[in-house]
Amino acid sequence: MSPEAQALHDGAVIVDGLQTSLWGRPIFEEMRAGGITAVNVSTVLWENFVEGIGYVSMWKHFLRENADILAPVRTVADIHAAKAAGKTGIILGWQNTSPLEDKLDYVEIFKDLGVNIMQLTYNTQNYSGAGYLEEHDSGLTGFGREVVSEMNRLGVLCDLSHVGDKTSADTIAYSKAPVCISHILPRALHDVKRNKNDDLFLACAEKGGLIGLSLFAPGLKAGNDATVEDVLDAMEHVIGLVGFDHVGIGTDFSLDRPRPSDWLLWANRDKGTARKLTEFGNVKINKPAGIRRMTDLPNMTGRMLARGWGEQNVTKVLGLNWLTLFDRAWTPTT
Amino acid sequence: MSPEAQALHDGAVIVDGLQTSLWGRPIFEEMRAGGITAVNVSTVLWENFVEGIGYVSMWKHFLRENADILAPVRTVADIHAAKAAGKTGIILGWQNTSPLEDKLDYVEIFKDLGVNIMQLTYNTQNYSGAGYLEEHDSGLTGFGREVVSEMNRLGVLCDLSHVGDKTSADTIAYSKAPVCISHILPRALHDVKRNKNDDLFLACAEKGGLIGLSLFAPGLKAGNDATVEDVLDAMEHVIGLVGFDHVGIGTDFSLDRPRPSDWLLWANRDKGTARKLTEFGNVKINKPAGIRRMTDLPNMTGRMLARGWGEQNVTKVLGLNWLTLFDRAWTPTT
Repeated sequence: MSPEAQALHDGAVIVDGLQTSLWGRPIFEEMRAGGITAVNVSTVLWENFVEGIGYVSMWKHFLRENADILAPVRTVADIHAAKAAGKTGIILGWQNTSPLEDKLDYVEIFKDLGVNIMQLTYNTQNYSGAGYLEEHDSGLTGFGREVVSEMNRLGVLCDLSHVGDKTSADTIAYSKAPVCISHILPRALHDVKRNKNDDLFLACAEKGGLIGLSLFAPGLKAGNDATVEDVLDAMEHVIGLVGFDHVGIGTDFSLDRPRPSDWLLWANRDKGTARKLTEFGNVKINKPAGIRRMTDLPNMTGRMLARGWGEQNVTKVLGLNWLTLFDRAWTPTT
Repeated sequence: MSPEAQALHDGAVIVDGLQTSLWGRPIFEEMRAGGITAVNVSTVLWENFVEGIGYVSMWKHFLRENADILAPVRTVADIHAAKAAGKTGIILGWQNTSPLEDKLDYVEIFKDLGVNIMQLTYNTQNYSGAGYLEEHDSGLTGFGREVVSEMNRLGVLCDLSHVGDKTSADTIAYSKAPVCISHILPRALHDVKRNKNDDLFLACAEKGGLIGLSLFAPGLKAGNDATVEDVLDAMEHVIGLVGFDHVGIGTDFSLDRPRPSDWLLWANRDKGTARKLTEFGNVKINKPAGIRRMTDLPNMTGRMLARGWGEQNVTKVLGLNWLTLFDRAWTPTT
């Protein structure tokens, strides 16, 4: 990687739209080493209300004990402050609205507690809609419309990555605020259920939303043989559809978690303990060569520059597009 | 009442240290009519964690639906802003730490949600200590010390009104921040268990705390025949002990709640459903003549002036002393 690429990376606001790494000091130090300015920490998958509260408390402890390198994020100003202070901003997020249980009021409770991103569903049906592994997609339910309206009213960003196609399309159409698909790959390049179609990317971008490209090898045609170039090919595919203003990164890094592990096996069962959902749960999955850990992020920046995207577009994709979306989605609507 | 008294009342910051009225628009309008600048709304008695969260949500609805006359309070600046806007500031408080259950982390969760005052115990034993009706007073427990330390660290005001004598004394000695006895009467004037001794008032004041005199007729010698003058006699007794800087008002108004009512019968059983605790639960209790409702507050201000306390001391007792305490107790300590 060129010194120019490293300099651009060091100066840029780098936002990771989603991670599920094994939280602790080593990972937090790697966030700094990789130059990450802000990250959506999003390991809530099947948690209920009390467990969702416990997740907030766990992060309050992490933030207090690692205040030299981490900072809590509630606003875009907090992200700029983290950049200035040489810290990584922690955005509390969920991959499921299960902690809301059946209480609409809990959207406001969690927004007050700093939860700024909620994926509407994880892999299966919940009160709000269907995940991508549900056989029949209910679409956005009546309760789900109220949940999305509450997110809009309070300023919670809605994420659709693991959400079923019909529920996703319904939500994009229904939401007053732009939404994100935080960690995704295009089905046009590799036709697996976990990926999404171009029409959904277009609809998301048309409403001002953002598509975060992930590093999830099973979503790339090359699978475990994929490299950072395959990721950038996927990114360029989406950029070709929606332009440079609506694309970002959501690494889906799940670093230092052993495979298999209790957590991954729990993640891979519906609601944590019911039927097994996929074969991903206990197989070895490599991140693409050249972007295997956070410390490889400058390398990816270098590869973007090498593709001739230009510095301005690279900084948009690295983080500025996320900031634009956060600014809109975190502003309460009336 | 003189026009001078009304003018002083209208211009003053009036803080009510505790109410349990039947919340709704009529009561909120009476808060305005009575000139109340801020009030500790404190009907949490036996609630568990999820019910404590429900209490926060209930108030978010009230605040939203009555935003023309109510405003949420998290800081002393919010109280000054409420005064300037002609609204009543709502301080979320509890009369029990039961919503913390066995989770120390929940102090921070609720502080984040705006709960700024917690009475350590209601009438009986809990994890933190003993209420005044417990036969043997455990004193401040090991867990209770940690709860008080968390309140200090985060800036939650600790209230000792219904707390047992030994637990109260222990807490005053242990707490780094000043505490309050938000709604109380002196045992020196009427020797009933619910009242407190002079030595506790002195200890509270010596640590910078505040004693809020209540209008609870059974705590006055005259009982249901008491008048506002009996309340002011009680107040002067405490002022004689601790001076004008450590005394305030905590009306304990429970307006518009029928007696008996489901709520009062629940309040009067240990933990809501266990043994019956007192005879207060279902008997008619009058507030003292001359101070029966919030609209009588200007009358009490007039009686204070008539006693020759002087305008400066009257404004301290009406609210400024509470602000001084809030400012100290709501500031996190390290």
